Amino acid sequence: MGVQEAGSRRNRSRDLIEAAIVVFHRKGYASASIEEIAATVGVRKGSVYHYIDSKEELLALIFEQSDGEASKLLEGVAALDLPAVDRLYALARNWTLWYMANIERITVYLADWTQLTGARRDQARAIRRDQVDRLISIIDEVKSEGGADPELDSAYAAYFLFSAVNGLVTWYRREGPDPAERIAEAYAQMIVRTVVGSSEVTPPVGHVAH
Amino acid sequence: MGVQEAGSRRNRSRDLIEAAIVVFHRKGYASASIEEIAATVGVRKGSVYHYIDSKEELLALIFEQSDGEASKLLEGVAALDLPAVDRLYALARNWTLWYMANIERITVYLADWTQLTGARRDQARAIRRDQVDRLISIIDEVKSEGGADPELDSAYAAYFLFSAVNGLVTWYRREGPDPAERIAEAYAQMIVRTVVGSSEVTPPVGHVAH
Repeated sequence: MGVQEAGSRRNRSRDLIEAAIVVFHRKGYASASIEEIAATVGVRKGSVYHYIDSKEELLALIFEQSDGEASKLLEGVAALDLPAVDRLYALARNWTLWYMANIERITVYLADWTQLTGARRDQARAIRRDQVDRLISIIDEVKSEGGADPELDSAYAAYFLFSAVNGLVTWYRREGPDPAERIAEAYAQMIVRTVVGSSEVTPPVGHVAH
Repeated sequence: MGVQEAGSRRNRSRDLIEAAIVVFHRKGYASASIEEIAATVGVRKGSVYHYIDSKEELLALIFEQSDGEASKLLEGVAALDLPAVDRLYALARNWTLWYMANIERITVYLADWTQLTGARRDQARAIRRDQVDRLISIIDEVKSEGGADPELDSAYAAYFLFSAVNGLVTWYRREGPDPAERIAEAYAQMIVRTVVGSSEVTPPVGHVAH
């Protein structure tokens, strides 16, 4: 295979991944078909199989790309020579900006890991677990620096924050009134407050019916 | 219809709703069948249709029950003669306790409103919107009382908190090590901190790659 041919092959694979993101995002992975992805790129279904083996391989490639970017983001933050609370702020800001800049892909990334099978699913689960563990570590460091309530449960805080940020895919729209920068700043401040802010409320009441 | 017959009819409907929660939670609404729900209750498929018209009616009944409880919870908190920050704390605590006490039903309630159709879907959307609006109102009140940064965007805070709490369905297990009370207390403190805590971090760095 010549250099040009290899390049064109890479471009076609990239086009298929981009089309898969659009179709998976619009219809959900389970309802999406290779035919529709092929049509989006403008090729016949049969020729798609020169590039990928299955619909699941396209999903796996979307995950590979997203896992790689998440890993780069986490490592970039870990490499900052800053107190943990400032690294938490940087992580929060860059994480939400990354989500918003790639909202369609991130929607698939968060919703469809259960559609992966076998070793791919095990790997996706392990990577998610590792991402949560890294957030737990930063929160632990904030506590060690005296920046958070020693009673704060770092694992619950990490679950709480992951869910809060993942919720961006339920409401963020590119055409919304506020720029992503403003939303990222608001989210980063809330994330830091969740961990370091003082909570001076005293439990005032019994339960309301539940 | 005699009193006893009406009572037995209500019981059978209740049994069907409970079975539907189990089956929808285990398989997802889309994959669930009336046959399986009937088998869980121990009746023939045909007799299910004496009580309900369709699978969607079962889902609608689950929503009706949950919407009613959510409404009662929100009204109970609104009726407390307390500062807004304390009502926020009470809401946060009771809301998370309600989720955990009914985690299977709440999983269906949060995941499957998009499976409702027509007027039912419109209603479900309106009720969600109303729940978010009530949370926004409490956060606005906390701001009016001087208990939060005046720059805090109440809508973003409400979206952030709804997502954080809804995330309980992704990790909470009844058989987990911590009692629901402890988790609710941790979540309530984080929710209050998100709104009222001081965030003294100063933006320290440029972006990490995203």
